[in-house]
Amino acid sequence: MKKADIGLIGLAVMGENLVMNMESKGFTVAVYNRTTEKVDKFINGRAKGKNIIGAHSIEELCANLEKPRKVMMMVKAGQPVDDFIEKIIPYLEEGDIIIDGGNSHFPDTIRRCKYVESKGFLYIGTGVSGGEEGALHGPSMMPGGSPEAWQYVKPIFQAICAKVEDGSPCCDWVGEGGAGHFVKMVHNGIEYGDMQLICEAYHLMRDYLGMTTDEMQEVFAEWNKTELDSYLIEITRDILGYKDEDGKPVVDYILDTAGQKGTGKWTAIAALDEGIPLTLIGEAVFARCLSSMKSERVAASKILTGPKPEFKGDRAAFIADIKNALYAAKIVSYAQGYTLMRAAAKNYGWNLNYGGIALMWRGGCIIRSVFLGEIKKAFDNNPDLANLLLDPYFKNIIENAQDGWRRVCSAAMLNGIPAPAMTSALNYYDGYRCENLPQNLLQAQRDYFGAHTYERTDKPRGEFYHTNWTGEGGDTSASQYLA
Amino acid sequence: MKKADIGLIGLAVMGENLVMNMESKGFTVAVYNRTTEKVDKFINGRAKGKNIIGAHSIEELCANLEKPRKVMMMVKAGQPVDDFIEKIIPYLEEGDIIIDGGNSHFPDTIRRCKYVESKGFLYIGTGVSGGEEGALHGPSMMPGGSPEAWQYVKPIFQAICAKVEDGSPCCDWVGEGGAGHFVKMVHNGIEYGDMQLICEAYHLMRDYLGMTTDEMQEVFAEWNKTELDSYLIEITRDILGYKDEDGKPVVDYILDTAGQKGTGKWTAIAALDEGIPLTLIGEAVFARCLSSMKSERVAASKILTGPKPEFKGDRAAFIADIKNALYAAKIVSYAQGYTLMRAAAKNYGWNLNYGGIALMWRGGCIIRSVFLGEIKKAFDNNPDLANLLLDPYFKNIIENAQDGWRRVCSAAMLNGIPAPAMTSALNYYDGYRCENLPQNLLQAQRDYFGAHTYERTDKPRGEFYHTNWTGEGGDTSASQYLA
Repeated sequence: MKKADIGLIGLAVMGENLVMNMESKGFTVAVYNRTTEKVDKFINGRAKGKNIIGAHSIEELCANLEKPRKVMMMVKAGQPVDDFIEKIIPYLEEGDIIIDGGNSHFPDTIRRCKYVESKGFLYIGTGVSGGEEGALHGPSMMPGGSPEAWQYVKPIFQAICAKVEDGSPCCDWVGEGGAGHFVKMVHNGIEYGDMQLICEAYHLMRDYLGMTTDEMQEVFAEWNKTELDSYLIEITRDILGYKDEDGKPVVDYILDTAGQKGTGKWTAIAALDEGIPLTLIGEAVFARCLSSMKSERVAASKILTGPKPEFKGDRAAFIADIKNALYAAKIVSYAQGYTLMRAAAKNYGWNLNYGGIALMWRGGCIIRSVFLGEIKKAFDNNPDLANLLLDPYFKNIIENAQDGWRRVCSAAMLNGIPAPAMTSALNYYDGYRCENLPQNLLQAQRDYFGAHTYERTDKPRGEFYHTNWTGEGGDTSASQYLA
Repeated sequence: MKKADIGLIGLAVMGENLVMNMESKGFTVAVYNRTTEKVDKFINGRAKGKNIIGAHSIEELCANLEKPRKVMMMVKAGQPVDDFIEKIIPYLEEGDIIIDGGNSHFPDTIRRCKYVESKGFLYIGTGVSGGEEGALHGPSMMPGGSPEAWQYVKPIFQAICAKVEDGSPCCDWVGEGGAGHFVKMVHNGIEYGDMQLICEAYHLMRDYLGMTTDEMQEVFAEWNKTELDSYLIEITRDILGYKDEDGKPVVDYILDTAGQKGTGKWTAIAALDEGIPLTLIGEAVFARCLSSMKSERVAASKILTGPKPEFKGDRAAFIADIKNALYAAKIVSYAQGYTLMRAAAKNYGWNLNYGGIALMWRGGCIIRSVFLGEIKKAFDNNPDLANLLLDPYFKNIIENAQDGWRRVCSAAMLNGIPAPAMTSALNYYDGYRCENLPQNLLQAQRDYFGAHTYERTDKPRGEFYHTNWTGEGGDTSASQYLA
């Protein structure tokens, strides 16, 4: 048998499906799993008769690979990745490539890339999105790491990844070091936001408009034929239509306690570290936390009071408002995510292709949507676009959507239906377009109690002033707070 | 001259003022500064004729201290603290105490406490709040670290700290390791929230109600005579009344770009790490970030459209609504901050006295207020209170305030005035008292694309179900995603 084009470690569902996908595109794949029974089961099962080579050790795996060797790990993020890197390295030669296809935290990927390069090998950390279905039929892939490695990995990744209508692959080189995993992290954060927005729309329809699950299914089915056409709206439609054994919707039996695996949290922390207001994703992460406090919420619901939601008016018109709120808030969320990527690129020295990232997300992944095609256009038109909200296409959409968006946020506030993502997005929009925010007062407060100084509107930027507000305490400013 | 009761390193304004405060309470203080000219200047200036001993080296400082030695650092947080610890240690004997009074990040304090203890010495990391005025006249102090150290430091700290009306000191032992700096960090996060809420109230009055700075000053002066009586409301009143040389309010000349030193960010990150929804402080941190993007905002203000704020109605009534919104949102912010402390206490094994913490914040510090006395009562009445919102006193206040709070949030949304802290607080309140959130749909989505499983309302907690939503992909759940 010929040697394999690539080796893969970790035969859980994502790994297995990626292997099947690669083999179906004409590549020979060698596979290894820590529990080697899994290798035999796979070779004698799904892999039977395919160009897939089973290995019972990492040594055997590496011996079966064409040079430069490409060893891809699909293992649990964290320590297992470091452990496997140590186990793989003894069997590599100069120029061989280690690939991490798991959900690794980007600082780990930055560190590992440097480490593996220091040993004379190449490293790729790649985001892989699309779940098990994506892995099998075409995921979105976001590779970054050692630039010299890309030429060897590109033919495989661009063969197995998702394609958009014109055949463009949803995979391209993102950048050096941890850039691929950073972009994947932001993707996941945006996914948190998109899901939260859908939940808020559902919540308003269910508890404010009093709609049945079947009625809501029809709305999402309609929305999926419009500019909201996307994987998450599509599966929401299907979920709302899925009946349990008793004929009632399954969704009505599912407990409202959201889990999370941490990538949304990482995104919010990255935004705090970069000083970028990523309010919608932050609220989405916190909304999952709040939802998980089920027993406390049940107890509180019997103690704390609020208005009884009562809708009067044209239901169809308000559903259209909800759609506008969802769409406008979604644009804000992507605008915030892109400003985060721009800040990180500057910080870490990555030369990110923002239109290319939209294309990678356009198909294969959880947030795939028609909408991302418009984002690609916006950044193709103006690669230096400071904020997606300033693109003429999106500016126009928000102008048309904002009245409905405002009515929905107002109704949520008045009727006691939480809508943290929709309202935080509107607050951001209104803050971003606000020439004079009230933080002049805040700067005065900081100068008052901490002598932190302030700039003045009638003086050049970079000149700092301190007022002795109380007539006591002197003119010592806080910057001298150093031994 | 007798030996000193305590030594202090770092003669910037906070350090100097703490020394003057200690000396005024009858303690002899030895002082050292890296730039020793500062020592001489201080000894021959403010310290002249006082029981203050100048030292030109750390050796000399330590030689002048009563045993067990207490060496307090008032130096810039970060590497300087580690550097000084190394410089101090050679001159200590077993049982001597190193104290860090700077704004250190609590994980650093946890690490340093272990390290210093491993060398046979004791360590205290203490929050000190109140700015330069507080340091001189009585700060709020939040010490944690080596419990055996407290008995030696207590007489000094409780002498110099702020006192409430009945004479109780605003300083008590917080807990082991990094507990003191954690509580100080949450204090600072809450300070971010309080300041943001005041800014939003000011913004609504200024740009929605069209009030003059003098009119707003009157409102804050009135509010400071009510249950909102607090240092930050008081200084807001004074700031709004402070005139520039031309007779116009200084605040109108101050640039609306808020600075920050990172402690609010740390609080938000700690909340994300603990899985606690700390939405108001998160929004307050992000609001500062957004305010700092001044040139981008000015550009956006000329491109992005919104409604023209237009107030019709009873201005006095709406000002009362704003007050209710500020007060209710403030209660939510403290409720969130306390749940964060509770989660951290569980995580790090601290036995926190929640009423005691309210007392420490009751005087001396930036967030000092009458309100904190009520929080102390709430936790004295029920030390296991899960959430401040459930305390009868605060529940009652919110019930009375919520109609106005909702009207303000609604008006902000409809009129294009950002009010991220007020609205995020209302969303939290409505989410916390919501028995059935929409995250049942979110769990269905996660199970659909990632086989993450869900719990059911008709089955016991802890049983996890997976639906094969598409009829493809098999029954493999994501937990098997491990090599």
